[in-house]
Amino acid sequence: MEKLLPHINSPKDLKKLSKEQLPQLAQELRDFIIHIVATKEGHLGASLGVVELTIALHYVFDTPNDKLIWDVGHQAYGHKILTGRKEIFDTNRQLGGISGFPKRSESEYDDFGTGHSSTAISAILGMALASKLQGETSKQHVAVVGDASIACGMAFEGLNHLGVTDVNALIVLNDNAIGIDPSVGALKKYLTNVKKGAAKDENIFECLNLNYSGPIDGHNLNALILELQRLKSVAGPKLLHIITKKGKGLQQAEENQVVYHAPGKFDASTGERLKKNDNGIPPKYQDVFGHTLVELASQNEKIVGITPAMPTGSSLKFMMEKIPERAFDVGIAEQHAVTLAAGMATQGLVPFCNIYSTFLQRAYDQVIHDVALQNLPVVFCLDRAGLVGQDGPTHHGVFDFAYLRCIPNLTIFAPMNETELRNMMYTAQKGLESPIAIRYPRGRGVMLNWQAPFKTIEIGRAKCLQEGSKLAILSIGHIGNTVSRVLKELNQPRSVGHYDMRFVKPLDKKLLRQIFKKYDSILTIEDGCKKGGFGTAILEFANEEKVSLPIAIFGIPDNFVEHGTVKETHLMAGIDSTSLKTYINSML
Amino acid sequence: MEKLLPHINSPKDLKKLSKEQLPQLAQELRDFIIHIVATKEGHLGASLGVVELTIALHYVFDTPNDKLIWDVGHQAYGHKILTGRKEIFDTNRQLGGISGFPKRSESEYDDFGTGHSSTAISAILGMALASKLQGETSKQHVAVVGDASIACGMAFEGLNHLGVTDVNALIVLNDNAIGIDPSVGALKKYLTNVKKGAAKDENIFECLNLNYSGPIDGHNLNALILELQRLKSVAGPKLLHIITKKGKGLQQAEENQVVYHAPGKFDASTGERLKKNDNGIPPKYQDVFGHTLVELASQNEKIVGITPAMPTGSSLKFMMEKIPERAFDVGIAEQHAVTLAAGMATQGLVPFCNIYSTFLQRAYDQVIHDVALQNLPVVFCLDRAGLVGQDGPTHHGVFDFAYLRCIPNLTIFAPMNETELRNMMYTAQKGLESPIAIRYPRGRGVMLNWQAPFKTIEIGRAKCLQEGSKLAILSIGHIGNTVSRVLKELNQPRSVGHYDMRFVKPLDKKLLRQIFKKYDSILTIEDGCKKGGFGTAILEFANEEKVSLPIAIFGIPDNFVEHGTVKETHLMAGIDSTSLKTYINSML
Repeated sequence: MEKLLPHINSPKDLKKLSKEQLPQLAQELRDFIIHIVATKEGHLGASLGVVELTIALHYVFDTPNDKLIWDVGHQAYGHKILTGRKEIFDTNRQLGGISGFPKRSESEYDDFGTGHSSTAISAILGMALASKLQGETSKQHVAVVGDASIACGMAFEGLNHLGVTDVNALIVLNDNAIGIDPSVGALKKYLTNVKKGAAKDENIFECLNLNYSGPIDGHNLNALILELQRLKSVAGPKLLHIITKKGKGLQQAEENQVVYHAPGKFDASTGERLKKNDNGIPPKYQDVFGHTLVELASQNEKIVGITPAMPTGSSLKFMMEKIPERAFDVGIAEQHAVTLAAGMATQGLVPFCNIYSTFLQRAYDQVIHDVALQNLPVVFCLDRAGLVGQDGPTHHGVFDFAYLRCIPNLTIFAPMNETELRNMMYTAQKGLESPIAIRYPRGRGVMLNWQAPFKTIEIGRAKCLQEGSKLAILSIGHIGNTVSRVLKELNQPRSVGHYDMRFVKPLDKKLLRQIFKKYDSILTIEDGCKKGGFGTAILEFANEEKVSLPIAIFGIPDNFVEHGTVKETHLMAGIDSTSLKTYINSML
Repeated sequence: MEKLLPHINSPKDLKKLSKEQLPQLAQELRDFIIHIVATKEGHLGASLGVVELTIALHYVFDTPNDKLIWDVGHQAYGHKILTGRKEIFDTNRQLGGISGFPKRSESEYDDFGTGHSSTAISAILGMALASKLQGETSKQHVAVVGDASIACGMAFEGLNHLGVTDVNALIVLNDNAIGIDPSVGALKKYLTNVKKGAAKDENIFECLNLNYSGPIDGHNLNALILELQRLKSVAGPKLLHIITKKGKGLQQAEENQVVYHAPGKFDASTGERLKKNDNGIPPKYQDVFGHTLVELASQNEKIVGITPAMPTGSSLKFMMEKIPERAFDVGIAEQHAVTLAAGMATQGLVPFCNIYSTFLQRAYDQVIHDVALQNLPVVFCLDRAGLVGQDGPTHHGVFDFAYLRCIPNLTIFAPMNETELRNMMYTAQKGLESPIAIRYPRGRGVMLNWQAPFKTIEIGRAKCLQEGSKLAILSIGHIGNTVSRVLKELNQPRSVGHYDMRFVKPLDKKLLRQIFKKYDSILTIEDGCKKGGFGTAILEFANEEKVSLPIAIFGIPDNFVEHGTVKETHLMAGIDSTSLKTYINSML
């Protein structure tokens, strides 16, 4: 049988096929995705689950004239392949290659950049209202939103507005009962009832004044196309509920949906993941967090753990397995997670609220208004802080020092290694009287034997790693290891001092005063944005002290950093070892 | 008849009354609130609307052992009066007096500080889960949430979690169909149907697995008490829907609910507001924004206006009246407001998205991820920026420079007066290619004739107001007028230069380089936090330029500023004219 996919370079080509040919195309598209992701890595399960939906949408709607938004975006691989990016799909997530998410600058078919969840309803409504105002009455506007994502507050805000408009907007609720981890919450329970036929007369979406249809089988191309064609002629806001299976078409991906969300390299024919040998390499910070929390919570019954929909990614799953009654996955609900933690803290619990740095942006107000203003001792663990690599600018966690530093009462700490993370978690649960943010990067630490006995870390106390005379390097967090490595490699290391500052707030003022006296110049380095970050904190303190030493600030410049490996993104930002060496040599 | 209120100093006293006496107490409590607010000012309508509910809750529940949270908090006057703060209630909102909002440090009856909306469900759930974990099975947990507030995404996140727990938590939905302005959205429409008896079998809250009861008359003390007593013995999460009238008991407040939300001084017996003479004084920045937007939108049909639930406060109401099809009140939904604006901007519209500075914290991620990352030319108008006075630390808009400055692509502007606000609004709608934040304070400007013809402001260009020789004062925004006043009053003004910097980002680097050369020292001043703010931006640039002039940064120190008049809070923060004078004199 002749292959169809090689002839599809745009939705125009797709529309030339007969409906009968589409299942074959679906199979080919699925195989194509599997074969590329098997070797190039990336997100898998979500895109496999929407292969039929992707084909049906581009078959029925007039993209890119009609608007189409993929919420969260990691399910848009099929969309990218069908809209002219098939030939370069093997560059996915690589430096200079296409993005793993929809991106406006990449294609006219990517109507809205996504990455964080639950933005699509608001964005498509904005577009639909714009079309209406501009008299484009026949234009269609479609947003695809998952069931985990639609339970986020922001999505509700969008639906609440959508329901009182008369725009041509279709929300496709892609219900697979899973986000990255299984969906949670009352809405998920409700949707499960709907699927079982157990819901009553009125539908929750109809309560919100939306024209609801479904649920229908999202892998049945014929049913999908018929229903989408029907809805195209229905005016006003609509919601179509479809049922899909994440990972559809690859047995292992269907059976291990969490693992195959982004499985790493695997055998395309068998689906087996290539085993990595983790022996003899340092652990992930995530696992250090996860295991340490279990260790601490076993001894301190006041400890609770909270994650907004990232039990696996954050490793809170270890506590959820061992101490389920005190570990909470609240779904994609960062705002709720933070204020829930605040409520718990008022009653004497010690909440460890683990949120990716980039997602804490969603709960910024709650950190200020509910936690810091009331000075409640919530322990924020900010995962994936700094440049995260292939996920790119939607996911880099680079603003946290800057946006947290201005908040009164908040302590900000960044561990340079596993021991510092463990010890600060230990310290935090021993009765801190104010909130703390502990931020650490995606990926591995530097220690093989990391489970040493706990020690208390004095709040606001930095650590001298190497005394020097001319240049003092002040590092914060894991990037301090780059500094240590560079100093080992240089010829004149003894003129260079190195300090692991540990706290961005409060600064170790006593030590800094000594450093200001002792050295000719200072270099600060952070895996975070330069504007308003750690280096700036040093600068502010030096200015307060009326010290005028030259201070070179190494950090992420004032632009969004594209995707690439972590190493490549560090290079782009100029916080790599070569940049560091060059500068140090120029100063000595 | 003997008065009851004088004998009520705590809920214990309240419980001594018979049910039959409670309507009399309600009347007295209402009168008490009216008489104090009439002369001392403050929020009125919301507290009048919940007089019966307040009495019923403290009558039925065992506060402060049982937990009680008042969402948003401006309806808690009755609560404060019944819980031991009657005698000091006339200090409400004044410097050193009680807060206009619940505040943990003020009373053991204030279980959770509120101010921003929609936090109560998450907080009460946190408390209820804590009680459960700590074995306190009989403890009750109640949150009172308005219908405008419950439509905010954060509240939905809380409900979505609550519905899958088995905690003793009661959400009282206080449905008066209004927030500060009338409620909007599909949920409001739905609730209206429920009240009319037009909703079908299944209830939206039952869909979320909550035990729903109501709607009942929230002014019927007997019905309220019976139902609350019944619910006390019902295990698990519950939602009670009550119908109240905002402003209940004062005719003008019932009839003009928006105006009597916070009516200023009024005649306690007639309810008539004391007329202020606005002639001969400068306009509010809010009205400058509102009228200017109408003026611009009349000429540029691409302009749309967006407010999350603040049409009156922001004066977007002028555009809503004149050009309703292009002005959107989206309800308490800051996240949605920002991404809606982003969606509109992709289609060539020019969205003016007006959000109070303190509330933009709710949409921080959307500003970064949906607007700035995609470099969409949304015009943010940040109202109530800087210290806001009597509303206090929940509402001060002091972090915006710091949290916005680290965002790539974003221009940050602060007008010193009405003309600069108008001209920047004019400039922004003429085809900016990137987003801009225009931040201005609560209250009045400085000009009587402010409607001058529009002029374009060059992006990143500051303005010299006075040349000097020794000390350069760099001000940003309205506080520049304090500087101008001080310089007029001083003896040696000519040695002091004064620059209205206008842009926090991009800085006027050319001018700054000249300033660095010309002056001996620099003073920066801003109505915003010092850490990471405008002064820090100057410091960072001076450091980049390897300039080591003394730079004194005037701004808000690193603590939360309590309530008081704007003048008093400026004094507390050290950004008042006396502090400025003292410093300038010391430098000359």
